Amino acid sequence: MTPPLPSGPARPPRIGALASGPLDAITDVPGVSVGHATRDAGDVQTGVTVVRPHAGDPYRDKVPAGLAVINGFGKSAGLLQLEELGQIETPIALTNTFSVGAVAQAQIRACVEDNPETGRRLPTVNPLVLECNDGFLNDIQRMAVGESDYRAALASAAAAFAQGSVGAGRGMSSFQLKGGIGSASRRAPVRHAATHTVGALVLANYGLLPNLIWAGQAIGPGIATRIDDRARRQAAEAEKGSIIMVLATDAPLDARQLRRLALRAAAGLARTGSVYGHGSGDIALAFSTAYTLPHRPEAPQPAPTLVHESLLDSLFQAAADSVEQAIVHALWHAAPVTGRDGHHRAALRSFLPTTP
Amino acid sequence: MTPPLPSGPARPPRIGALASGPLDAITDVPGVSVGHATRDAGDVQTGVTVVRPHAGDPYRDKVPAGLAVINGFGKSAGLLQLEELGQIETPIALTNTFSVGAVAQAQIRACVEDNPETGRRLPTVNPLVLECNDGFLNDIQRMAVGESDYRAALASAAAAFAQGSVGAGRGMSSFQLKGGIGSASRRAPVRHAATHTVGALVLANYGLLPNLIWAGQAIGPGIATRIDDRARRQAAEAEKGSIIMVLATDAPLDARQLRRLALRAAAGLARTGSVYGHGSGDIALAFSTAYTLPHRPEAPQPAPTLVHESLLDSLFQAAADSVEQAIVHALWHAAPVTGRDGHHRAALRSFLPTTP
Amino acid sequence: MTPPLPSGPARPPRIGALASGPLDAITDVPGVSVGHATRDAGDVQTGVTVVRPHAGDPYRDKVPAGLAVINGFGKSAGLLQLEELGQIETPIALTNTFSVGAVAQAQIRACVEDNPETGRRLPTVNPLVLECNDGFLNDIQRMAVGESDYRAALASAAAAFAQGSVGAGRGMSSFQLKGGIGSASRRAPVRHAATHTVGALVLANYGLLPNLIWAGQAIGPGIATRIDDRARRQAAEAEKGSIIMVLATDAPLDARQLRRLALRAAAGLARTGSVYGHGSGDIALAFSTAYTLPHRPEAPQPAPTLVHESLLDSLFQAAADSVEQAIVHALWHAAPVTGRDGHHRAALRSFLPTTP
Amino acid sequence: MTPPLPSGPARPPRIGALASGPLDAITDVPGVSVGHATRDAGDVQTGVTVVRPHAGDPYRDKVPAGLAVINGFGKSAGLLQLEELGQIETPIALTNTFSVGAVAQAQIRACVEDNPETGRRLPTVNPLVLECNDGFLNDIQRMAVGESDYRAALASAAAAFAQGSVGAGRGMSSFQLKGGIGSASRRAPVRHAATHTVGALVLANYGLLPNLIWAGQAIGPGIATRIDDRARRQAAEAEKGSIIMVLATDAPLDARQLRRLALRAAAGLARTGSVYGHGSGDIALAFSTAYTLPHRPEAPQPAPTLVHESLLDSLFQAAADSVEQAIVHALWHAAPVTGRDGHHRAALRSFLPTTP
Repeated sequence: MTPPLPSGPARPPRIGALASGPLDAITDVPGVSVGHATRDAGDVQTGVTVVRPHAGDPYRDKVPAGLAVINGFGKSAGLLQLEELGQIETPIALTNTFSVGAVAQAQIRACVEDNPETGRRLPTVNPLVLECNDGFLNDIQRMAVGESDYRAALASAAAAFAQGSVGAGRGMSSFQLKGGIGSASRRAPVRHAATHTVGALVLANYGLLPNLIWAGQAIGPGIATRIDDRARRQAAEAEKGSIIMVLATDAPLDARQLRRLALRAAAGLARTGSVYGHGSGDIALAFSTAYTLPHRPEAPQPAPTLVHESLLDSLFQAAADSVEQAIVHALWHAAPVTGRDGHHRAALRSFLPTTP
Repeated sequence: MTPPLPSGPARPPRIGALASGPLDAITDVPGVSVGHATRDAGDVQTGVTVVRPHAGDPYRDKVPAGLAVINGFGKSAGLLQLEELGQIETPIALTNTFSVGAVAQAQIRACVEDNPETGRRLPTVNPLVLECNDGFLNDIQRMAVGESDYRAALASAAAAFAQGSVGAGRGMSSFQLKGGIGSASRRAPVRHAATHTVGALVLANYGLLPNLIWAGQAIGPGIATRIDDRARRQAAEAEKGSIIMVLATDAPLDARQLRRLALRAAAGLARTGSVYGHGSGDIALAFSTAYTLPHRPEAPQPAPTLVHESLLDSLFQAAADSVEQAIVHALWHAAPVTGRDGHHRAALRSFLPTTP
Repeated sequence: MTPPLPSGPARPPRIGALASGPLDAITDVPGVSVGHATRDAGDVQTGVTVVRPHAGDPYRDKVPAGLAVINGFGKSAGLLQLEELGQIETPIALTNTFSVGAVAQAQIRACVEDNPETGRRLPTVNPLVLECNDGFLNDIQRMAVGESDYRAALASAAAAFAQGSVGAGRGMSSFQLKGGIGSASRRAPVRHAATHTVGALVLANYGLLPNLIWAGQAIGPGIATRIDDRARRQAAEAEKGSIIMVLATDAPLDARQLRRLALRAAAGLARTGSVYGHGSGDIALAFSTAYTLPHRPEAPQPAPTLVHESLLDSLFQAAADSVEQAIVHALWHAAPVTGRDGHHRAALRSFLPTTP
Repeated sequence: MTPPLPSGPARPPRIGALASGPLDAITDVPGVSVGHATRDAGDVQTGVTVVRPHAGDPYRDKVPAGLAVINGFGKSAGLLQLEELGQIETPIALTNTFSVGAVAQAQIRACVEDNPETGRRLPTVNPLVLECNDGFLNDIQRMAVGESDYRAALASAAAAFAQGSVGAGRGMSSFQLKGGIGSASRRAPVRHAATHTVGALVLANYGLLPNLIWAGQAIGPGIATRIDDRARRQAAEAEKGSIIMVLATDAPLDARQLRRLALRAAAGLARTGSVYGHGSGDIALAFSTAYTLPHRPEAPQPAPTLVHESLLDSLFQAAADSVEQAIVHALWHAAPVTGRDGHHRAALRSFLPTTP
């Protein structure tokens, strides 16, 4: 479907001094899995990506979570309740802006299937759907994503997963180049305690090419002179994008601490050249897998010993670094895509010098 | 469909000392209109209510707005961007919790129809859909509300509109009695300036009967002894509800001031006996019709002289009073409804003493 | 100094259905103590009130806390860090608006005395000083409160303490009557768990007389016709006030839950006739004594089993009721005071009918 | 007092592509002035810096402002009301953590002098004092800063002002090197409108040396190997710092827009190597000089035509760039200081290679 990636350096640059987990992906956090459903037919270049916090039913065993709204130009669903209750009760779904409603309905139906009294004897469920606008490559008005895409993405969730122009990332653009899904992880040494893992998964759909900083190198202006006139013209037409940044950690943190962790995504994002543009929905959320919050008050309740507040710094560093690395991976893995009305986004790798 | 209301006092009690507008409804704010689509067939007792801020296209001419999240246990759509940008760009839709996705999609499609480049050359649109859970009377799992309901509600919007068990209010419960749609308005004298109107529309689906305060009278405990055992048993089963409070004003306020105005809905709500229960999504938003914000930066921009901050108190009083009055109206107008699995909610009026 | 209270009913009205603790005061929460320092000489009618969360050093053993800013027209110190870290590390001090700086300095000095490396090897300390403007009765420009007042209030902290026109409440006005310090407590039954106590202490300096609701009775307008012309004229001159509401509980809650608890103070406040006026700094904070957060990461860390989110409602009711009761107590106990320039505030009790 | 700066490159590196104003300082925004009072005697190495938004009395003519709390580990005064009302009513004062109270009192007294009814017939005033902890070089426990320092700083305010180890910056450390005051400005072209200026002033007291990025160059690790053992040991002792970032603009923005502008300081900060450490109070505020808000409602009120929301991006870029440039200037201009207990901070410039 998409041409093979042009040659370039053998591997993506590394961000920061902390070690990665074995996969250098969010799935280095034990229990986390990721799945995609990709739609790539002509003018339809879109999809769904799902992050499952654990293998069980998050409605019955919720995970603590925090939210950082860096720029709230966005249409994500489920954030209101996440902020109030500090917890997530569905898998985290990513998709395009106009498909939030369809995916939210799919999440409701999946929850009802597993918990037939949802919305009756049990409370309703809070679908968590995050989005970016892939309208440059994808005919977003078709609302092509449906319930089956969510189900397929969920069913395919695994520790190993593809990055780049897949799932919700299929139609995304970043820095007038091809964006999409990227992931990374970092190991954070916490004093007097086991080392913990922070993992990031981003849906990258933001950025102006002249501002692109690639692992500390301001490569944007150079590439800007090399993309063709048509891309430049199309770029000027395109709406500015967004980025969704999902952080997972096995460190025992509560919702307030997870909000603090999520905010550090803003630092990783800024180091790639973003100033959180007006039209960019820049949203970060973080969850912990260290304990779960049972739906039923009669169930045994957790009593986690949280990380002492003064020991959060290495986790903060890991959050910023894994987000920047995840963005690097998103651009690195992004295969070029031609979509709606012949709009095209080139791969960043085709502009990188080849390492012999 | 529903039986005639039992007799009771001739008219609802009045809240506070401020005068009402001629309709004592949110539509006393010039330009505001309200429409309903009601679904009342057996287990399906639900619907859509739409508040239009003005007769034009709010995508092209947005209205300034502010949000107050009193208790964020809710699944409303569109609040993230409302908070960031301080503006509303679709009609305000109210519906049941599981129909947010469908109504949001309907709003997107309506916007695309009117603005064909939405999500292409133009930015996407931010659907604004607020919800309560009507699952006690309505089989919410059927997701019966569809695009046509939104369209019908929108098409029927007018200055005169029904209250009680209609539109989104069809299946709502309040204080273990029938809840639903209520509206009211108050005139706020602002020193050295024209008097302004504040109007409220609520979707009332909250409250525990023993706590009910009716225009200052603690009538809840007395009624609680009179509802039958079955209602009490059902009440104990039912999830706690929510309340959506929409405020409109013709006073020239900006988004920050409108957030302050919206927060005063919490005072009106508390005076009816609510302590903002854990499971109740208590959301207030306020918008001003005094000026609009054009979508296009090339268009002439407004230069409103805002109300001086120190003169807001009468507007705050009007907000609290109109919300309490709107709740009184919701309960007053609510016809009894029997719905899902024979669940029944009685009308408050059947418990009020008749005034000869 | 102040004349004896005129006769009236034998005891203040009771709010709500929940039982009180034995003292009906915030000090029913085990470990909490309250002290005052009162300045009452001519034009100086002011003071300091201190709430100690526990008998130890809160810098070394911090308490979890949450903040609800209902109306942020206020100059309190220490709220920024309280919100970020969700903890309190000094006693909670209340005083007049212009004395916040002096009391904050006193708190710093007290902390340095107990922890000599504060601001050197140890971090600095976050003084927590909440305020209302007593400028109607007190010559606030004199900044009469000094470090010794804070020390005296702290030293006098005990489970038994005076209410009304004492401590920080000395110069406060409420509803154009004498306001000040009030306190109350409620016992909240939490399912499958021990009953917990919620206590409130308020510094009441808010309200317009015609709006006063006294335990559900709208007595304000009647009293308004009876206060003399001079009081009315002075009332018209006076700036609108503020209210500080401090909640304590022995329920194991975290900072996020405590913020939710604190917000319910808004309901209790509204039921007394407040709509959170523009110029009124209406601030609520809540802390838990169920566990402490050690300053040093090397110390043993707590692992509390928090109250399940769905069981918070009785605590919310207790918060709203104890705040309303504390306001009732503040007005009930408030002795009349004549202060700056002969300004006078009468006691509410002189307007209440005598119960034989 | 301090030795002359060692040689190094002739001028500091430039950040970004936007042009600076003539001074490359916050005072390029017309009407803004800056003054310092510096205390540099032995163990006392501290001071006050004042930013005046305009030459008049900001109590009578307030300026619209917005706040972005990036990390709320801080003790600044005045932020609560700034957030609620979106305005500033005193000059902006910067000082050390333990002197906030003294400077706040000085601000109150200055306001009372100019407006004798403050706190009587007029409302109280909201002192705005921002702080960092200079306890490594300064004996902060002495609370050496007094009212006269605030007055001196205010009196010296001018368009031309010193940067580096002066005023509040005297005792500040950054990246284990000498930090302090820095300033910069950028010109932002806004489509279909006049170009506007954004100016920044920072009080830099944050950062870990290995993380330092200097205009895109990761020079931190190299310098870390060159500072002597004693500095490293002292560094390990020192508390982590903070940064205050004040933004001014002549663009007509309201408080909500100014909050958005202020948040972009986080991007500039991140590009220098910060991940917003746990113990770092990272606070940004932005104000506009395009119009003022009169204290008295009877006064003529402004009716500004605000910048269209979709045109904010160049201002956002200017905010991020001017903050990063201001940090560069703070480090560039910082002369070495020896203070408390012989603690010493070297100047960054002594580690930069000399440009011939």
